[in-house]
Amino acid sequence: MQILDGRKAAQAIKDELKITVAQRVVEGKKNPHLAAILVGNSGASETYVAAKVKACEETGFTSTLIRLEDSISENRLLDKIRDLNHDPDVDGILVQLPLPKHISSKNVINTIDADKDVDGFHPVSVGKMVEGLPTFIPATPYGIMLLLEHYRIDTKGKHAIVLGRSNIVGRPISILLSGQTPRGNCTVTICHSHTKDIKEHCLQGDIIVAAIGIPEFVKADMVKEGAVVIDVGITRIEDASKKSGFRLRGDVDYENVSPKCSWITPVPGGVGPMTIAALMKNTFMSCAENN
Amino acid sequence: MQILDGRKAAQAIKDELKITVAQRVVEGKKNPHLAAILVGNSGASETYVAAKVKACEETGFTSTLIRLEDSISENRLLDKIRDLNHDPDVDGILVQLPLPKHISSKNVINTIDADKDVDGFHPVSVGKMVEGLPTFIPATPYGIMLLLEHYRIDTKGKHAIVLGRSNIVGRPISILLSGQTPRGNCTVTICHSHTKDIKEHCLQGDIIVAAIGIPEFVKADMVKEGAVVIDVGITRIEDASKKSGFRLRGDVDYENVSPKCSWITPVPGGVGPMTIAALMKNTFMSCAENN
Repeated sequence: MQILDGRKAAQAIKDELKITVAQRVVEGKKNPHLAAILVGNSGASETYVAAKVKACEETGFTSTLIRLEDSISENRLLDKIRDLNHDPDVDGILVQLPLPKHISSKNVINTIDADKDVDGFHPVSVGKMVEGLPTFIPATPYGIMLLLEHYRIDTKGKHAIVLGRSNIVGRPISILLSGQTPRGNCTVTICHSHTKDIKEHCLQGDIIVAAIGIPEFVKADMVKEGAVVIDVGITRIEDASKKSGFRLRGDVDYENVSPKCSWITPVPGGVGPMTIAALMKNTFMSCAENN
Repeated sequence: MQILDGRKAAQAIKDELKITVAQRVVEGKKNPHLAAILVGNSGASETYVAAKVKACEETGFTSTLIRLEDSISENRLLDKIRDLNHDPDVDGILVQLPLPKHISSKNVINTIDADKDVDGFHPVSVGKMVEGLPTFIPATPYGIMLLLEHYRIDTKGKHAIVLGRSNIVGRPISILLSGQTPRGNCTVTICHSHTKDIKEHCLQGDIIVAAIGIPEFVKADMVKEGAVVIDVGITRIEDASKKSGFRLRGDVDYENVSPKCSWITPVPGGVGPMTIAALMKNTFMSCAENN
């Protein structure tokens, strides 16, 4: 069993970006600028946004973190996004999800200029991705594709089982893995809450992508010998013995599944860091195309 | 074995539209108007466009057929589309594909106003479909969903095998069947030219959608007893004994497969008429939303 080390692969991507950005600056071009909006202050969202800001610092990107009270009205948030849309220095805009219940994330996503939609959630980005056109790919599935690329995992003609059909992971990764992409050309089965015999489906998988948000859902008896397992889940489980008060668990029973795998992502340190590296790549692309 | 009769289901949809349109006209509202552009004069394209124009006549829609020489420049074609975009009476625009090689169908599709994109090929339409937002669904997969609806085929939790990953059929139908749609919630496996053991995959299918464009590809030994088979293929095979000089063949070996099926679409008379009914529904929706 070998580890798909997301930290290492993400570092390699960030190192490469850092050099390219430094070269741009030497040539008198602008560096990429990511603006992140954080509404309220939930623990997980704080952690994710902090990691994104840190990645910007590491790679020579400018970052702007805009903190807003969770009582902010939807209109004021949308105005804030419009300001960033019009700011020529800002290349990428991300609004950390989830948002407070009184704000429509659909309206928020649709308000972000499609040319700065580095999270890849805007309908135009999604449509272009489906049609195989160049665009921003949602950060988590893009990160998974970059991880497969980094470790040169053979995907062509393999049978990939995707657990979950969310717009942010399951749906786009099923499209990318089955598409004519560098690490695509898989036969893909997409499973979800209505799937019968999910174990039987999983057992057919040369590749399994678990993105359902149920801790340790994928057990050893659901995975065939030699499978490549990508664990997208990351759930905080209360744990009084930890300083933070919680431990992190993926959607895969890592301890028992990993011995059967050819490759597997750990949690944490697998898909999480790759998501951030993918966001950096999207932001860089936005900057390079427009400047 | 029962027939999924596309002619009958399409007629029911058109009959309903006809009544609704007549009511609109009585209320002093405008009727739907579909503008179709036909470049050149290939036999198959002529047939398809003629059927669309006829469907408009039957349902009380206005239709405009614009015929252009196949030597027309891309720029002149795009100008023509822009004229239609700005024409307030036109609710839907379709450009019959395929186009001559010197014209980029991508540019053509992207030039059509997303609000008049009744073929559902514009990236905005595709993105909204993926995200489950109201939009124009591409006519062929939409027609298939309407056919399943008409015959109340149970799809929830069924395993659907989609053969083909094209942007016009395979990809969108795999998304619709696996989505939270009225005839969705299937577990979906998407197969294509790189799929190994395609027969083994097909044999698992409670539902098979064949959209690969290879006549009679799906044989009886690839289909399990009781499957629902949707044949999207329609290939003209030369046949000197026919007055037209050709006969039509689907992607399914109908003669041998049909006895095993619970339901099957014939070719012709299955998906084809449904595609046109779906186009009519899209055009009606465009009209009703904007007038």
